[in-house]
Formats: sequence, C-alpha cells, structure tokens
Amino acid sequence: MKVVVKSFAVSLDGFGAGPNQDLQNPLGVGGAALMQWFFPTRVFRSMHGQGEDGETGVDNRMAEGGFAGVGAWILGRNMFGPIRGPWPDDNWKGWWGEEPPYHVPVFVLTHYARPPLRMKGGTEFHFVTDGIDAALQQAKAAAAGADVRIGGGASTVRQYLQAGLVDELHFALSPVFMGAGENLWSGLDMNALGYQCDEVVQGERATHLIVRRKSPAGP
Amino acid sequence: MKVVVKSFAVSLDGFGAGPNQDLQNPLGVGGAALMQWFFPTRVFRSMHGQGEDGETGVDNRMAEGGFAGVGAWILGRNMFGPIRGPWPDDNWKGWWGEEPPYHVPVFVLTHYARPPLRMKGGTEFHFVTDGIDAALQQAKAAAAGADVRIGGGASTVRQYLQAGLVDELHFALSPVFMGAGENLWSGLDMNALGYQCDEVVQGERATHLIVRRKSPAGP
Repeated sequence: MKVVVKSFAVSLDGFGAGPNQDLQNPLGVGGAALMQWFFPTRVFRSMHGQGEDGETGVDNRMAEGGFAGVGAWILGRNMFGPIRGPWPDDNWKGWWGEEPPYHVPVFVLTHYARPPLRMKGGTEFHFVTDGIDAALQQAKAAAAGADVRIGGGASTVRQYLQAGLVDELHFALSPVFMGAGENLWSGLDMNALGYQCDEVVQGERATHLIVRRKSPAGP
Repeated sequence: MKVVVKSFAVSLDGFGAGPNQDLQNPLGVGGAALMQWFFPTRVFRSMHGQGEDGETGVDNRMAEGGFAGVGAWILGRNMFGPIRGPWPDDNWKGWWGEEPPYHVPVFVLTHYARPPLRMKGGTEFHFVTDGIDAALQQAKAAAAGADVRIGGGASTVRQYLQAGLVDELHFALSPVFMGAGENLWSGLDMNALGYQCDEVVQGERATHLIVRRKSPAGP
C-alpha cells in the first residue's frame, strides 16, 4: 500500500494550476494547457466513450499507470468544484457528470460537512472536515491495502508532500509556461523532506518524472 | 545575430543555483548537482585536457551547441567570482584559471569599475558598470554579427528575460531538487513576455528545453 500522486501536471515554471479557477476554468485560467498531454491519450478518451481514437504511446502508458491499483482518492475542495465557503445545497456533484472516472471511494477535503454522495460506476464522494491526516486514514481504510492516490490540486499535493506522507510522486512536466497560479514547489524543500527523482521518461507531449521518498520516517 | 542563453541548468523546483555562493561553492551550496549532466561530456572534459574520456551523446551535443557561433558573453558578477562589493585588488581573475573556456570577449556586470583583463586563449574580461543594456550593446559590437550568450547566473538571465532581450533560451532541466537558492522563474511571466517552448530533447542526464521569443517587439 502506497500513498501516490500520479500524472500531476506541472508547467515549466512550476505551476500546477492557473489562477482564478471557476466553472469555465476548472484548472484555472490557462490551466488546460497543462493537460494537453493527457487529452489525446486512450485513457482520457475512454472516459468519454472515445477510447478507440486515443493514442497508445508513452503518455498513455503513464496515465494508465496512475489508475492501476488505486483503492481510494483524496481531492482538495477546489478539485471537486468551484464553489467556495458553505455548500449552498447538494446540487454540485463534481466536474465529472453522473459517472466520475474514479470508481472507488473519493475523500474530499473541505471545511464544510456534507453527506456522502454515491455516483454511478462505484465512485463515492466523502467529505472530510478534520484535515489531511484524517482524510488519509479514512482513505487508507477504504482502499483496504490498495494505493491511495492524492488527485490534487497543487495546494493539496503540497500539503501532503510537506507532511512527508507521499511515497511516490509522478509529475508530468508540460512544455508550457503559466506565469501565475498555484506553484507546486513554493515553500517545499524536497531534498530536506527526503525526496529524490529516480526516473525521467520522455513522452510524446510531456516529460514524466518519478520522485520517491527515501527516508521513510516523518520529518 | 541572436542573444542566447544556452545550457543553463535548472533544478526540478526551478533553481538555477544553490544558496550561499562562496569560493568552495561557485554554484552555491548543492549547486554542483545541477551540473551533473555537463561534467561527463566531452565538451566539459576537453576544457580540462581530458576530452577523450568524455561522453558524446545528446547532453554533449547540446553543450557543444552552446559554444557554436558565440562571439561574446555576458556574465553576472557572481558568475565571475565570489567577491562582493568593491574589488580589493586585481588578483581575482575568474573561476577558470589562466585560460578560461570563453576564447572571446566577456562582459561582466558589476557596480565597480575595473580595467579589462586579457587572459590566455583569447578571453578578454570587460567590466561594465552601467547596466544590462549597455553590456548588451558592447557585447553585440564585440561579437560582430555572431551570437551573444548570456552565461548566467540566474539573476542575470532573469533580468535579460524580463527585458525581453533574449531570443533563445536553452535550459537543461536536471532531475534534482534544490529547495533553496536563486529561482530562475521567480516573478517572470514567460507567456506575457512572448516566450514559448518549441522543443524538448531528452538527454542522458538532463532534459533539454528550447524556448524562443515569438513577439520580436519589446514588452
């Protein structure tokens, strides 16, 4: 059982999302450019019923690896939706429609309680109000021995890295600049936290870097 | 004639040098890790009379390209040496010994005037006290139609990028984290400045990214 971050897209200047996220810009303004490597893959296109058109190269293989063996996910509130503050009602059910691509329990970090949400295809959203450690505990229990994947966004990934709780980080370096937004590396001393880059794999549209934590003890 | 940055090493978290540069740490503490891709190349080893031992793969080809067609260099003060403030005397002649690897005129940005320094092998250090524009003008004149290469460090490169004066930036992404030091991207909005990444080339020990300025007009 590992805690992993997979296929997390980062710009050349270190941003994991653009600024000013809203309904039209789930990844922030300009943030979609970060995902240009993912959209043509068979993995992504299969999520939209167009798998046959998808590419099956290195980028696809890396994206595929991000879903294998994952028993539960953790998402930051903003990755679940654009709504800030208290939930006005229970209408917002994520960016992904009736059948989200998770198919396992998903733990959403939020300051505002909300009943769990059972979606088509096995995805169940649970809303966790008592912090990243509690979310990880619940996700580990739900994953029952399989991996827990931290889905994002940048701030959530950064918090788990800072706490030394991520065993493996695969990030996809997109050959674009963002200039503004959420910087993944901001304030993180990855060396001091015990992380090292083990592998670099050049894909068709992104460079994939595999980073692992060498010192298993907490910081 | 182009203004270029070549073979500029950057860590995964965006640092172009480590912190606390001194005589023992020309690239700052931990900064030598950034150059691990360069040291085994034939280009680097030839500078030390050991060319035959050098590797001749992708990294070497990229390093080689950084010296081709360069008629003059510009260096920041710290890239020339660890001394801060006024020059105590004329004894410091750069990090590189009697025969520096430039073999052309080199313009060093400093606030403190100093007579030019003629070294073995054609390198001539000129000390420019009136800013980056003046240095570029002098370097262009000296290069006589050949390219001007901005050698670094990070702060110097950032100033020239910010001013929109760099036509082409080749940076070598080293698969290491620095955690502290001089961040190349800090405060730079590369998109707004008209820069785009055109090419990604995977080397043996670094990923090479070629960035060009698309809008020729100043910002």
